[in-house]
Amino acid sequence: MSKPLILVSNDDGITSKGIRVLVSIMKKLGEVVVVAPDSPQSGMGHAITIGETLRLYEEEIFDGVVAYKSSGTPADCVKLAKHYVLKDRTPDLVVSGINHGSNTSISVLYSGTMSAAIEGALEGLPSIGFSLCDFSSKADFSHVEVWVEKIAKQVLENGIPKGIALNVNFPPKQIEDIKGIKVCRQADAKWQEEFAERFDPNGRKYFWMAGNFVNFDKGEDNDEWAIANNYVSIVPCQYDLTAHHAIKQMNKDWDWESLKN
Amino acid sequence: MSKPLILVSNDDGITSKGIRVLVSIMKKLGEVVVVAPDSPQSGMGHAITIGETLRLYEEEIFDGVVAYKSSGTPADCVKLAKHYVLKDRTPDLVVSGINHGSNTSISVLYSGTMSAAIEGALEGLPSIGFSLCDFSSKADFSHVEVWVEKIAKQVLENGIPKGIALNVNFPPKQIEDIKGIKVCRQADAKWQEEFAERFDPNGRKYFWMAGNFVNFDKGEDNDEWAIANNYVSIVPCQYDLTAHHAIKQMNKDWDWESLKN
Repeated sequence: MSKPLILVSNDDGITSKGIRVLVSIMKKLGEVVVVAPDSPQSGMGHAITIGETLRLYEEEIFDGVVAYKSSGTPADCVKLAKHYVLKDRTPDLVVSGINHGSNTSISVLYSGTMSAAIEGALEGLPSIGFSLCDFSSKADFSHVEVWVEKIAKQVLENGIPKGIALNVNFPPKQIEDIKGIKVCRQADAKWQEEFAERFDPNGRKYFWMAGNFVNFDKGEDNDEWAIANNYVSIVPCQYDLTAHHAIKQMNKDWDWESLKN
Repeated sequence: MSKPLILVSNDDGITSKGIRVLVSIMKKLGEVVVVAPDSPQSGMGHAITIGETLRLYEEEIFDGVVAYKSSGTPADCVKLAKHYVLKDRTPDLVVSGINHGSNTSISVLYSGTMSAAIEGALEGLPSIGFSLCDFSSKADFSHVEVWVEKIAKQVLENGIPKGIALNVNFPPKQIEDIKGIKVCRQADAKWQEEFAERFDPNGRKYFWMAGNFVNFDKGEDNDEWAIANNYVSIVPCQYDLTAHHAIKQMNKDWDWESLKN
């Protein structure tokens, strides 16, 4: 049997520590091809590059691994990999990360890491986004390596439902070992923004966005709970945003007489 | 009763024709405040500005309306509006658009228009993204004005379920009048990308992304069907990406013995 083909991307950029760790783990499991942004792309959500050009350069940065850096977003990178770099070859697995920082709960919407994984799922490929809940560029990934390998192996062997991307978050390094894995739902939480005002040397105002994370969720079956209790959280994510229950409700509650042609 | 407060944003930028049309309609329904990007932001998905500064300038561009342009993304604009411009005032409605181009089906993921609306929903506000399925910057909006007004009025009067943003798409101008409204689900479709290669004057390669829309959906209860049949499509969208059905399936299918600590 030939080795599985594994596509690696991320949103912190091709030189980040997290992607180096991820590449080194994936090399044990298969043939690795990297297509990742040439600069940090945190918070890019599911952005793609429209009306602008894209660059793509091969880069000898990982030992024995074909790697490209692109000027595009994480979603662009997966598109470039699938439709240009790999062309007739289909990856057996798409992995993104390991992100420096949490992508639990509502952060999945803003996450470049997860947009790469969701783009993989859109292509019908088993896809995983990995994030460590530690924002430091020098974050300690040593306690998560074994888990990344276990989870990737599991997906290669037992698959995941079609059209699903896994949002995997790891608790930061602690004295106590990680307790295990929880498959869970996205916690109900939000970022409560504040804007810090500053003035440039010309006296013109600018802003820094500074958010506080507010967790409304009291449940124990969500990703915030899992991380807070030193478990790995896995949220299976889909890209159908339809609030199916709301269709019936709107058809009932709205005044449809006034909405006729 | 005081006039409702309506926040307007978009992704084509504050000078686009679509937002001018939207502002003129919303002025009939309430007090309008605009916070919109200073330049086109199509395809920005749910991007936000992290690690970079934001600008925000008041602009006299719409007659009798307080308006601000920002260097940020559509999601940034709604955050700036809610937490800085309006501060203690809560909008009764957030509207985004009218986008020059379709945001049906999977395009909702890439859409800056919808990210502004979803950001509104995240803030607990009734929110609507409007898009016209005509990419021209000079698109004819005359046939949709009455529908935008009707739908916005309906939401102001009868509300929408909490945490939901409406993705409203209009068919392009045709000889026949629009037939009516369909509340529907997001069609199962994708963009099949192609990358056109070019060379710059220094002989270095660059790319244009050029996608073909591929519709897999044979149903008649989805937004692609509605638009193709000259109906207005309304998809209620939520921001919980959890594939709830997959949680049980993964707990059953995976080899959990090998995933223990």
